[in-house]
Amino acid sequence: MNTLENLITLLSRLPGIGKKSAARMAYSLLKGEEEYNRLLGESIAELKNKIHKCKECGNYTEDELCSICTSSDRESTLLCVVEESPDIMMIESTGDYRGLYFVLHGVLSPLDGIGPSELGLDRLMKRVDDLGVTELILATNPTLEGDSTALYIKHLLEGKDIRISRIASGLPVGGDMEYADKMSISRALKGRMEY
Amino acid sequence: MNTLENLITLLSRLPGIGKKSAARMAYSLLKGEEEYNRLLGESIAELKNKIHKCKECGNYTEDELCSICTSSDRESTLLCVVEESPDIMMIESTGDYRGLYFVLHGVLSPLDGIGPSELGLDRLMKRVDDLGVTELILATNPTLEGDSTALYIKHLLEGKDIRISRIASGLPVGGDMEYADKMSISRALKGRMEY
Repeated sequence: MNTLENLITLLSRLPGIGKKSAARMAYSLLKGEEEYNRLLGESIAELKNKIHKCKECGNYTEDELCSICTSSDRESTLLCVVEESPDIMMIESTGDYRGLYFVLHGVLSPLDGIGPSELGLDRLMKRVDDLGVTELILATNPTLEGDSTALYIKHLLEGKDIRISRIASGLPVGGDMEYADKMSISRALKGRMEY
Repeated sequence: MNTLENLITLLSRLPGIGKKSAARMAYSLLKGEEEYNRLLGESIAELKNKIHKCKECGNYTEDELCSICTSSDRESTLLCVVEESPDIMMIESTGDYRGLYFVLHGVLSPLDGIGPSELGLDRLMKRVDDLGVTELILATNPTLEGDSTALYIKHLLEGKDIRISRIASGLPVGGDMEYADKMSISRALKGRMEY
């Protein structure tokens, strides 16, 4: 049954999908409605034709500029640098941020051939100047790669009159010290604030 | 971003896929290769055009008859009744069965409007006669619905000279009595065998 095996192989290349989940999905598609399959199939095949990166910030959008860059009620002197497009969705969901974004679509990783130009750091610098940014938030993940990338960007901005901050890391809200990792506890201590 | 949200909604209708997994899949498709997306998309859209049920046993196949029904080295007087097509794959993987199959594509469920004719039990009876079946294994799941369906089929076959058996249920191999449910322990006791 070549068609089905082929589909299962393709599905199991999706993130978090193993052979068993892929088979379950394939059989569910077989049992389901043809109309749904057509819609889903076309959405997937056409996805990259319809969606591309915003020319300003790199966020995924169907238009030339994304809805955040074109919005008139965002503070254009406040810029937040994130690793990936979905990070914007997460930050937006808090409602606590009213500035603009810049998406790196990755982190510095010299071994994988990802350097400053692959991340578009020249475009970031240009954006900082064009917008007249006064505060820049480095919101890359608190991982080894995310930290190095944040540090690299900080160095690039040296000499400019910009407030640079890094998002806090420590214990997650609702977390338990007993089950936290050493690194998070160490960060929580170093980042302690006046109470 | 309508296209992306639409895809996430479609993906989250797949079994075992929640909103978060669907978003992860969608973003991975966005970051991935266009060629892969095209292949996957077309496979899904075309799936039901290419694959249909075997005219004899109901197993999914790309041809008129499935590879098991057309195989010459299967015992054609031994028939195994299963609920779904993937069950065949599971039984085949054991290598312990050399007979033919019949797929019900469901279980009796009067409340959902699934009766004997929806499961093709008339075709099952015809198949039993045509093949001259001497032994029939009822391999529906050991659930309330699977048990009732097995019992119903057993009654249908009454009067015919056929050995009818039901797959064993009890503790799974490697299972622990301490964590097993009452029903499985009860079945394991009732189905105990001379040692």
